[in-house]
This record gives sequence, structure tokens and C-alpha cells, in this order.
Amino acid sequence: MKLSKLAFQVTKTPPTNADTINHKLLVQAGYVRQLMAGVYTYTNLGLKVLRNIENIVREEMDALGGQEILMPALHPKANWLITDGWNKIDVLFKLQSRTGREYALGQSHEEIVTPLAKELIHSYKDLPLTLYQIQWKYRDELRAKSGILRCREFFMKDMYSFHENQADFEKFYGEVKAAYLRIFQRLGLTAKVTEASGGSFTQKISYEFMVLTEAGEDNIFYCDRCDYCINQEIATITEGDACPKCGAPLKLARAAEVGNVFDLGQKFSKDFDLTFANKNGEKKYPIMGCYGIGISRCMGVIVEKHHDEKGIIWPACVAPFAVSLIALNGAEPYANHVYETLQQAGIKVLFDDRFQSAGSKFAAADLIGLPIRLVISSRNGKQIEWKKRDQAESELIDLETVIKRLQ
Amino acid sequence: MKLSKLAFQVTKTPPTNADTINHKLLVQAGYVRQLMAGVYTYTNLGLKVLRNIENIVREEMDALGGQEILMPALHPKANWLITDGWNKIDVLFKLQSRTGREYALGQSHEEIVTPLAKELIHSYKDLPLTLYQIQWKYRDELRAKSGILRCREFFMKDMYSFHENQADFEKFYGEVKAAYLRIFQRLGLTAKVTEASGGSFTQKISYEFMVLTEAGEDNIFYCDRCDYCINQEIATITEGDACPKCGAPLKLARAAEVGNVFDLGQKFSKDFDLTFANKNGEKKYPIMGCYGIGISRCMGVIVEKHHDEKGIIWPACVAPFAVSLIALNGAEPYANHVYETLQQAGIKVLFDDRFQSAGSKFAAADLIGLPIRLVISSRNGKQIEWKKRDQAESELIDLETVIKRLQ
Repeated sequence: MKLSKLAFQVTKTPPTNADTINHKLLVQAGYVRQLMAGVYTYTNLGLKVLRNIENIVREEMDALGGQEILMPALHPKANWLITDGWNKIDVLFKLQSRTGREYALGQSHEEIVTPLAKELIHSYKDLPLTLYQIQWKYRDELRAKSGILRCREFFMKDMYSFHENQADFEKFYGEVKAAYLRIFQRLGLTAKVTEASGGSFTQKISYEFMVLTEAGEDNIFYCDRCDYCINQEIATITEGDACPKCGAPLKLARAAEVGNVFDLGQKFSKDFDLTFANKNGEKKYPIMGCYGIGISRCMGVIVEKHHDEKGIIWPACVAPFAVSLIALNGAEPYANHVYETLQQAGIKVLFDDRFQSAGSKFAAADLIGLPIRLVISSRNGKQIEWKKRDQAESELIDLETVIKRLQ
Repeated sequence: MKLSKLAFQVTKTPPTNADTINHKLLVQAGYVRQLMAGVYTYTNLGLKVLRNIENIVREEMDALGGQEILMPALHPKANWLITDGWNKIDVLFKLQSRTGREYALGQSHEEIVTPLAKELIHSYKDLPLTLYQIQWKYRDELRAKSGILRCREFFMKDMYSFHENQADFEKFYGEVKAAYLRIFQRLGLTAKVTEASGGSFTQKISYEFMVLTEAGEDNIFYCDRCDYCINQEIATITEGDACPKCGAPLKLARAAEVGNVFDLGQKFSKDFDLTFANKNGEKKYPIMGCYGIGISRCMGVIVEKHHDEKGIIWPACVAPFAVSLIALNGAEPYANHVYETLQQAGIKVLFDDRFQSAGSKFAAADLIGLPIRLVISSRNGKQIEWKKRDQAESELIDLETVIKRLQ
């Protein structure tokens, strides 16, 4: 794509209300625009990043045996009354039709997926069952903040599993945990599996996948020597206390939750009378699990973790394009040839074809943050300057080598 | 994919409240489930169809020079007050946060895209500008009906264009019209370009793209000899009257709107004070156009137009898989080999591996409606029975030929 054709361009001016790096850089580099607190438009560039993250998550959920479906965002009040979420969940957006029908906007989908599963689950032979979706969610947050980290409208993968017994749930939870850690690793994030509260409906603990960042809204205690990690909300310890697993002193840090796992027990199966016949023909309630990943939040956390003073540094798998291509004065004809050749080779290129100074083009490339920068200059003839976004050194290589490296 | 793995299976029992063929067949074949009137869950199969339609629409919008973005569904009340839509649009869903902040749910996005364009448009050099999105929309319909044709939550492509003058808008409208007719043709739909009312904000006419079907909710007069077509709502004629273009007698028929084009004039540019400097440096308001395609509605209309008494007959480009593969008793080992070979060749196969009678497998294949059915039977050795869903005759061909035809 030619940079001049992008509707939303880079800007030197940071947004006045940005409280976090992701908000500042994502707006300046042209990935998002804020409509109001906690509600954002994704530009063409931003949508590409979102789709890349979405596809990584989808791949791993499919590999787990999850089946993708798409449930609505508009829910009947009746379903939320059955679980008492209508009264108990303070972030639930409620609305009314002009004829007085009442709805909730989906902030999670247990209330929809459980009755849906009644059609699918009759016998132990129908278990386990795993359904997931990738979809926009709505939460009436008191304070939306931190750019796209804490939003009122956000993009999420939510998966729901149904099991014959606790052991089967635990086994599947282990697989999900491994898949989650793989996802976050692919996204360039180191997530800590953190014990946390199970929410308003259960005494059980849940697990949160936490990435250390000052932009986060949680405080966690973690151990440097082992993998022990606990949310301050449920912890009865202070910084420096001995790790209950290995004895090393615990550290306290700010973190952002990028994923979570809830052991829902039989709460929702009982509420919706979802039963199955076990091997002895007895009626039982399945054990349910719920597994979330905040896709738009991950995009924000990636920026918090991968940037420098010049801009974003996207991991290659989520970058909207593979390379920034820059032509210095006089080198446009060869740069055009390089652009066409790369595109024909199936390589995603963002070609800065604007009438701008070299300095301004370099600044734009750094701000946008694609993994590789290619510079074409008459001085270097057919040789192309190759530089990684996260390294200072550059090298001169020929077009064939550029293609070989990028394919 | 193996049919036994699909969470939502085919069923002989039609839904009790189905008023249209699309509702009946889409539920029976396992593509959708109704959550409440006008609100549906899309199963894995249904989601595949929706994505196929979405991708065709995206291709054609990109080819027009449209730039895809994604605007939120949650809108601030202020934007809707500026245009008076807050008071005038009866299908607008409104809601309130727990702190009393008021929002609308997007039923169209002029109120969001116009202020967004203020950042992008300053001079005539910034025009024309074309932005589009593909997204779920919300409408407080008094009567949601006809399966996925008239929904309260529906999937839509909406595009917005900004022009220097009326002539430029008309030129672009011509291009969009051609792209729309191409899209509907690709989807297997014959759309008639129909004159209609421009809505509550303008005296101008709009154009609706109408497909003749009894499941539709509009009545249109159309001419068989030329392309004249007008919505009964704005027509002052009756059936049999002479076509104003060619004199042939007009026909009256029921139709479903699958797309539309609105000449918005300067209504929204003026409301949001969106201006540009023309060649003489004078401040002017751009002319805006709005172009919709109902993606989920198209899915329903395709079923209305492409089915027989046995089930759906998907056009190949929207079908969730390319072929149904059926093994008759004893032929499973070779069928498995065929399944693996086709998948390795990149062909999307739905393999009916269930322990069911041949008749029940044939019925499922007909109901699901993939374009090609392959039957493996010990009787035929390595020869494979190839049958098109919309034809009665079958033929025996070898695996190599199957692959050649499907690639």
C-alpha cells in the first residue's frame, strides 16, 4: 500500500487526553481514533493489527478443538434474570425497545451459550463440548481509561467448555493454559498465570494471564524464582514476603490482564437446567469453563511493551505490513520497481510515496513501527538499505536477498 | 471437516415459528439459531457463509478505492442530537450508563464518520474520500421477521463517500452501482435498481437494490422490457400501467432490499460543519453519499432464491465447503483416503462420517446444500460418484479428475 493513500496519517501532535503510551502512539501513528472515553474507531492500519491478533487466537482455539460460532450482542433480559446477572453485574449495559422490551448488551456470553448448549448436550457422549467466538463486547465501566486497555466497547475472544466432571475440566484447562501461553508468546508478551478471585458467583479462584506494565490496572505479587503469582486483591501477603512455593522474596508490580480462565462449576448449568445422562443413566449437571482473551487490549499491551521514544515496534506477526519502503530524492523510479516486485512476491509493503523530507519519512516509519525498513537511495545504486526497527545498524543488500529474507 | 464434529447438526424438524424459507432451512441445516425475534446466533457453518459474502463485498469495495475502517457500535448521544436523529429516527436504540451518560447503538454511521472526516478533509485535494466498514448494526424494529431478512441485529457493509460537487458524486455513484450489480451477480442474485424515497432527511430519491422474492417486505413496480423499477411507496402508478421509459406494461412484485445508495447531499457536512477549501479558496460543504449492503440479509435472500424441496443450494462462492463427501457402508477406508487427499489439495470438504443410513446422509447433504456431492461406494471401486446439487444426473470419475475439477 502507498502511505499517501492512507486516510489517517501520522501526526507529531499527541492527543491531549492520552494517559498511556498505547493511547498516544496508536493515535499518533494512525491506528485508532477516540470517539469518546473507552470507545475507539480502528483505522485501516489498526484493523489490520486487530485481524492479525484475531487470527493467531483463532488458530490456537481451533487447534484446541474449539468450534467458532458467533452469538449476538443483544440479549433478552430473561436470560440475565435467570442467573441474577441482571441485578448483580454492575457493568451490564441495559436498554429498552420502544415497545418496552428489555435487553442487555453482551459483556460475556454464559447467559446465551448455556441455553444454546441444551440442544447439543444430552449424554456424556456429547461431552466435552467447546464453543468460542470472537466479538465486540460492551461494559458499562465507571472509568474507561488507558487507551484501548480498558474500554466500554472492546474486541474479545470468549470460549466456553462443558465437561462431564471436574477432572475433565482440569485436563482441558491445562491445554487451554498451554495454548494461552503460546498465544501470548507469539504476540511478544510474557504472561504470568495469576491466581485471582472467581468473580461474583463463585468461591473458586480463577486464573488471570498478566503482563507486567505500568499501564495495567492490577497489582500482582510474583516470584522471580518460580512461577508463583497472585493478584493483590486476594493476597494476604506484602512485598518481600516469602513465596509460598519456593521461599524467594515476592515482588509487587503493576500488570494488565490479557486473558483469564474461570472455573464456572455448575452455576450456569444449574441456572439453565442443562443436564446430561452419565454412564449410569443418571442426570448430571456439566462443569463449565470460560476462557477470555482481550484482543483489542492485547493490541494496546503490545504497544506498551514494544516501543521506544520514536514509536511502536510491532512483533512481525501482528504488524500491519512486513516492511516500510522509503525512497530518498531521485530514487523513486527504482523504489517503484522494488515496491512492485515485493508486492508480486506476496510481501506486504507500506511504501512512503509522500513528498516529504527524508527525516520526516524516517520519523513516520519509526512511529508506525513495521519490523523492517528498506531505504532506496541513488547513492547506493541497486543496493537496498535493510534495517530492523529494533536495531540501530543497517546493511546494504540486493533486491533478491530482500525478497529471500521476507518470504 | 467431519460432519460428526459439527456442534449444530441437521434436523428434520423445522422451527415452529418460521415464517419464511430462509428461517426454516437455515435452522434445519444448522446454519443459525434464533435467540429471539430478529436476533440470531451463527453456527460454525453459518459463520463461514457470512465470511464468504463479507469477503466478496470487501474485494469489490477495495477495488472501488474504498478504505476499510471499523467504527464503534456505541455512539455518544451528542452526535445524534446534532443531526436530530436522536428524536427523528424511531428505530434508534438508546441506552444509558449507570452514571446517566446516554448512548445510541449504531443503526447507520453518518453521525460518526462525518466528524471523523473533519480531520481528513481540508482542501479539494483531499476529495473524493471513501471509507467503509463491515459491522453489526442495531435497529429497534417494531416487527422483526422473515428469518435473517429483517433483524434487530444484522451484519452490514456501510460505505460513505465525500465529494467536491454533485457531478463527482454522480460519477462515483455510477461506479458503486456497477460494483453492486457485480457483487449481487457473484452472490447468485439478480438485483433491480429501484427508485425509492431518500428517507427522513431529504427530498432526493435513493436507489434500492431489490431482489424479487415473496419473503421480501417491499412492493416494487418493474418493467420486463427495460430496467425501470420503482418502489410502490413513491410510485403513483398501478400494475399494468405503461412503463415511463419504454411503454411496456409494468409488473408489481414483492421484493427484498439487499443494498441501497443514498445521495446525502450536504445534510451531514452542514450539521457537523465539515468544509473544504475549493480551488478558489472558498469554503464549501462536501456532497456525501452512503452505500449499504445487508450481508446477513443477503445470506437469507440467497436461500430464498436458491433452494428446492430438499434444502439449500448455495452458489459455490458462498458455500461453507466446496463438497459433501459421503461414504456408503464398507467404503470408509477409501473415503478417508479421498478426504485426506482433497484436503491436502486445499479443497474444502465436509465429510459425512456419521453412523447413519445412506438415505439420511443424502438428505443431510441436500439440506446443507454444498454445490457438489461425492459418493464413495464399494460397488464402484476407486471411481467416485460426482453429482451437482442442482442437477439430478451423476457421473463416475476418478479422484484425479475430482481434484482437477475442484481446484
